[in-house]
Amino acid sequence: MVNSNAMTEPRTFSKEDVMKKRPASAKADDPLSSWAEGPAKSAIVQFVQSVVEKGGKDYVPPEERIATFDNDGTLWVEYPLYTQLFFAADRVKELVPKHPEWKTKQPFKALLEGDMKTVGAAGVKGLIEITLAAHSGVTATEYAEKAGQWLRTTQHEKFKRPYIECVYQPQLELLAYLRAHGFKTFIVSGGGMAFMRPITEEVYGLPPWQVVGSSVVSEFQIKDGKGDLVRSAKINFFDDKAAKPVGIYDHIGRRPILAFGNSDGDMQMIEYTTGAAGRRLGLFLHHTDGDREFAYDRKSYVGTLDKALGQAEANGWIIVDMKNDWKRVFAFEGI
Amino acid sequence: MVNSNAMTEPRTFSKEDVMKKRPASAKADDPLSSWAEGPAKSAIVQFVQSVVEKGGKDYVPPEERIATFDNDGTLWVEYPLYTQLFFAADRVKELVPKHPEWKTKQPFKALLEGDMKTVGAAGVKGLIEITLAAHSGVTATEYAEKAGQWLRTTQHEKFKRPYIECVYQPQLELLAYLRAHGFKTFIVSGGGMAFMRPITEEVYGLPPWQVVGSSVVSEFQIKDGKGDLVRSAKINFFDDKAAKPVGIYDHIGRRPILAFGNSDGDMQMIEYTTGAAGRRLGLFLHHTDGDREFAYDRKSYVGTLDKALGQAEANGWIIVDMKNDWKRVFAFEGI
Repeated sequence: MVNSNAMTEPRTFSKEDVMKKRPASAKADDPLSSWAEGPAKSAIVQFVQSVVEKGGKDYVPPEERIATFDNDGTLWVEYPLYTQLFFAADRVKELVPKHPEWKTKQPFKALLEGDMKTVGAAGVKGLIEITLAAHSGVTATEYAEKAGQWLRTTQHEKFKRPYIECVYQPQLELLAYLRAHGFKTFIVSGGGMAFMRPITEEVYGLPPWQVVGSSVVSEFQIKDGKGDLVRSAKINFFDDKAAKPVGIYDHIGRRPILAFGNSDGDMQMIEYTTGAAGRRLGLFLHHTDGDREFAYDRKSYVGTLDKALGQAEANGWIIVDMKNDWKRVFAFEGI
Repeated sequence: MVNSNAMTEPRTFSKEDVMKKRPASAKADDPLSSWAEGPAKSAIVQFVQSVVEKGGKDYVPPEERIATFDNDGTLWVEYPLYTQLFFAADRVKELVPKHPEWKTKQPFKALLEGDMKTVGAAGVKGLIEITLAAHSGVTATEYAEKAGQWLRTTQHEKFKRPYIECVYQPQLELLAYLRAHGFKTFIVSGGGMAFMRPITEEVYGLPPWQVVGSSVVSEFQIKDGKGDLVRSAKINFFDDKAAKPVGIYDHIGRRPILAFGNSDGDMQMIEYTTGAAGRRLGLFLHHTDGDREFAYDRKSYVGTLDKALGQAEANGWIIVDMKNDWKRVFAFEGI
């Protein structure tokens, strides 16, 4: 269902809030306190210790400690549909008076009727079509304001919290832990860069140039002496699957030594990361927790984790089991 | 003339060397000691002081202190032709046995004959054609090694120094000065990102993700379990003129408050930077020094500075006069 309570109950949120909400039981000396002891946490800690150990055989100088994270389903919730799709859906509803053809044209018709199953069945192509149509002709400045405002004020239907809070606490700790060990952390997402960037610095500590993702063709225009980018309905770069290493090459320019994803769309990023000399770590988050979050993998229409799950063991990739490896999922969650 | 002494006299070079070579006369307390006192230096210092002054009317928080620099002709030498073209030329000469058609096809024919006037007359389109043809099919790893090696070992014909040393000392000081005041500094160049990045961290203190530029279409391929990007002969993004704000939007995601260029190709970047609320600074380097470097502007076939020169005063853009505003041009130069 499209969020009917969009734009209600505005909340503010900051990194400090997350910290304040940390459970009293968390050990002050464990930077990964939301991670349960187990193979996933051990693999992370051992990897980091090995690459920072000066003189060790796996030592990596700080400037090469690049870590890349998918966003949807890896850092924030992607279920029952990508957050950006709900943002686009709310805009499509606003624009219907100007686009009466959407009432009869799929997947817009299904979207307007709240039939998200049919929307999902339209596949990535359908989702992209909706997303591109929703904000065509908007300036970069307007788009950033709208996206930031929407993420701060629109609630996720299951968690009844604004999307900006629906980020995984263990991953916030992991990002901070990596940075404390000299890593440069990046998002490499199939989602739109411009959609994520208005909140990534506040939520993840990632300035916009450390956020790689999909983009639309935009054009520089000057009006009344003020120049701005105007966003078109044409896709420029779709940062998924084999395009993720391309996005990394173009935007980061250095091969990661750690990459974290959650779906088959992240496989090539992990292959690019782990398929080179030196110690490397590839991880996939497996959504196994239908109570605290959602349980989905091989047959899901979002975040399909199938091939990667089958090939993980042979490739030495770590499968992080949400239910068992994470003591808590969200900062707002009781423990 | 194509560099006939390419790959001879290898030299090493580091940021420390530049510092060591600083003239003894430079005041230890002046971070911009290679800049002569005058309107350009004053404008820079006053601008920086105003945006860092807490509580001041022009204060800008550190995360928004974005400064973008063109590279060719702004940070390093671009005359008599863009450095990347000489790199491509050397490769074209190597590849002639495999491409006999180049001996009769322009602009390759002129390039092989050392007739750089005809090459230059082929315009940007011709230069791009040569550049793309030269390294098609090369992996990202190979390309980075070749470009870095070439820049370290190939001499500029006038200065008899490797290209990696043909960078402007006052600009190295300015980059460091801005960073010391909380700025994030970026290159936004029409040149290839992949060509610049192998040396930008060492020379300018800019890691690859702070280097925006043109790119080719690349494809992720896995061979023998090792994945890498393979570069094609097709252009992906040409980061010049109105595309510069687009490159800034896609790669940096935040509007600069200071931008520095040297040609009409930088005008839109400067307009994007200065055409918004708040205190802003746009600068153009004017190549006026035929003795220490080169003198060229309105009619040059590289780095044409014509329209921007005419519009500078009305727009409040600062024209930096190399001859009068820079006490020294290169670190290797006597003073």
